[in-house]
Amino acid sequence: MSLRDVPSSRREALAADAADPLASFRDLFVLDEAGPVYMDGNSLGRQPKATALALSRLLEEWGSELVGGWQHWADLPQRVGDRVGRLVGAAPGQVVVADSTTVNLYKLAAAALDGRPGRDEVVADARDFPTVRYVVQGLASQRGLRVRWLDGPWAEGPSVAGVSGVLSPRTALVCLSGVNFRSGAVADMAGVNRAAHEAGALVVWDLSHAGGAVPVDLDGTGSDLAVGCGYKYLNGGPGAPAWLYVRATLQGELLPPVWGWWGQEGQFEMGPEYRPVAGIGRFLSGTPSLMGLVALDAGIEPLLEAGMEALWHKARRLTLLMAERAEQVLVPLGARLASPARDEERGGHISVAHELAWPATRLLVERGLVVPDFRPPDVLRLAPVPLYTRYVEAWDAVGHLAAVLADEQVRVPVPRSRVT
Amino acid sequence: MSLRDVPSSRREALAADAADPLASFRDLFVLDEAGPVYMDGNSLGRQPKATALALSRLLEEWGSELVGGWQHWADLPQRVGDRVGRLVGAAPGQVVVADSTTVNLYKLAAAALDGRPGRDEVVADARDFPTVRYVVQGLASQRGLRVRWLDGPWAEGPSVAGVSGVLSPRTALVCLSGVNFRSGAVADMAGVNRAAHEAGALVVWDLSHAGGAVPVDLDGTGSDLAVGCGYKYLNGGPGAPAWLYVRATLQGELLPPVWGWWGQEGQFEMGPEYRPVAGIGRFLSGTPSLMGLVALDAGIEPLLEAGMEALWHKARRLTLLMAERAEQVLVPLGARLASPARDEERGGHISVAHELAWPATRLLVERGLVVPDFRPPDVLRLAPVPLYTRYVEAWDAVGHLAAVLADEQVRVPVPRSRVT
Repeated sequence: MSLRDVPSSRREALAADAADPLASFRDLFVLDEAGPVYMDGNSLGRQPKATALALSRLLEEWGSELVGGWQHWADLPQRVGDRVGRLVGAAPGQVVVADSTTVNLYKLAAAALDGRPGRDEVVADARDFPTVRYVVQGLASQRGLRVRWLDGPWAEGPSVAGVSGVLSPRTALVCLSGVNFRSGAVADMAGVNRAAHEAGALVVWDLSHAGGAVPVDLDGTGSDLAVGCGYKYLNGGPGAPAWLYVRATLQGELLPPVWGWWGQEGQFEMGPEYRPVAGIGRFLSGTPSLMGLVALDAGIEPLLEAGMEALWHKARRLTLLMAERAEQVLVPLGARLASPARDEERGGHISVAHELAWPATRLLVERGLVVPDFRPPDVLRLAPVPLYTRYVEAWDAVGHLAAVLADEQVRVPVPRSRVT
Repeated sequence: MSLRDVPSSRREALAADAADPLASFRDLFVLDEAGPVYMDGNSLGRQPKATALALSRLLEEWGSELVGGWQHWADLPQRVGDRVGRLVGAAPGQVVVADSTTVNLYKLAAAALDGRPGRDEVVADARDFPTVRYVVQGLASQRGLRVRWLDGPWAEGPSVAGVSGVLSPRTALVCLSGVNFRSGAVADMAGVNRAAHEAGALVVWDLSHAGGAVPVDLDGTGSDLAVGCGYKYLNGGPGAPAWLYVRATLQGELLPPVWGWWGQEGQFEMGPEYRPVAGIGRFLSGTPSLMGLVALDAGIEPLLEAGMEALWHKARRLTLLMAERAEQVLVPLGARLASPARDEERGGHISVAHELAWPATRLLVERGLVVPDFRPPDVLRLAPVPLYTRYVEAWDAVGHLAAVLADEQVRVPVPRSRVT
């Protein structure tokens, strides 16, 4: 099916599902066909049926092998890391699974700053996900650095021109997201990397909304460092461990701030001095979470099977369908698309801004129609996931949103509760 | 049963098991009665049968509630933390479960150093677990601090006099373990805290071999900061998340180096500036590992049910039995007790030094007799765990070790493999 010839009626959406070469992947996930349309896979991915088996197998190993299991568990951070690497264009030996996105971001940003001594500026984006901004603020505060904040309309990502405008010989680090968490705007990774390198700076990418969602080519774009989330598009489950990437040629040069025993050469010799291993392993800190690792491994398996090219083709068709339908039925109700207008500049989700975004979110959830998510102050994110979202669901989700926005009930004030 | 009247024959050991008020707790764990005697619960605790159920329940919630599950998952780091707190003498609101021991140690040590600006010395122990030493070395290297290393015989812990001898107005931080990983030597936490506080320094305790093993009274000993492991005596499974403690009165004063969104006031408002919550939550960084949390929660349940007093009584009787038997059957074979001689100075395990410790470890494992663990260069650790180790197993373990040390085979050189 051609990319832009997207379904323009519910019947055509059903026909697109019938012809979808990825349709059978939906069967790999736990789901209730009578449940709401799930449009929040970019917050918490659905559960692969294989996860339960992977955990049972680990419990079996722990029960029978006890501490001896570490003989074959120990290199799981690297083995699963290499599999994540296949999704984000990283050759083996450059990705490990460990810790949380936040901790990994801190480790890599601190390592990069240590790698550029004498420079006192960091470039970051005021529109970025909170933890990226806070980690950068913390490091800047602790080290007396100045943050050059990029800003602009949400629907635009940080542009190469914008980054170039603040780069200087003082810039140590550029810390940005590959896909904006709110608008879905896609950054030009190659362009930013090139500009930063010309200025002598290093770049850390947060790929939480990019990895497994859009084509990422870490090696091909000349990236230095990156982190990503395990529980969104990678389906690793709530609080799944995150991943980190360090370009092979940087691994000997950079040192993480946390000198942990899992990065030690001859770990079980327990020698007196910290001697980090030569490779990516030095970016490990403590004992890796085995339950998280085996669940994440099960989570990425369907992505590897489907292949990023096929997934991206369907993802774009899904968001195109939704953006076109939003234009038809949501804009007349006062909504506007808060994502980039051109689909090639958009990641795996679309965002819709409306002053009643919060009560609309609550109504959609309470009525069991759609699970979107809300981002303050006025944005609804809708994330179809090509592994398990049907075209007809994408169609219906926008329709349901239009219906609640047209409903009198949406004007009843509702206090904001904790949302994720 | 009186503490020191320990079994002195196999028959008496069987009788002690028959009279053991904790005997039924063994049934709560996955184990193979035909398997080797497990003496490595201080490296990886056995699996509670309840763990599988806890994980199934979480999978059920993830599958059916999807992202909505966070409404009741979000405070698990604090809820499970409070339960860990009951095992280590911490009133509620001072412990959270998060990250790894290494990362937590880094976070608390860095926070303490930031809390004592202008001071440029750290006290640590050369006999300590590698990751404690490496984290301290890293922070010292990054901040230009001097480490005052304590040292001495393995069988002695860091003494209050030893610590006092290096304290000065330059000391920012004392970083020690409550129970030494190798010898089991118990530190005088109250005494060290008092001496450090008199010098104006803060103390971080690594309680990985203490929590759930020996009586710990964090509040009562006037402790500042502590971390501990989830996969040893707390039975949380391989790579379980760790815990951290920050005294209530220090929580407003100290700031972690990692400014993460899980420590943010009004987390889902996603505001522009990092504003840490007032309480212990500011020491959280990224999204907590749910699988790790529910498994750890299942792991500590039997400890809470049995109570630390009863557990400690049995633990001391088990190590007394083993130490006495070691005196009788291992010392004549050239071994010596590498743990403190007086049982009240000893944690939950005993260590035996012998030049053939490594090949003896291999023979015990290969023959399916005992799972001890080996610590270079010449120590075997034997850790009976009162929740699931029988007196007769403690008796047999020492006997099996004597048998392999007396066996010609033990003199055949064997290369050292990865051990945990």
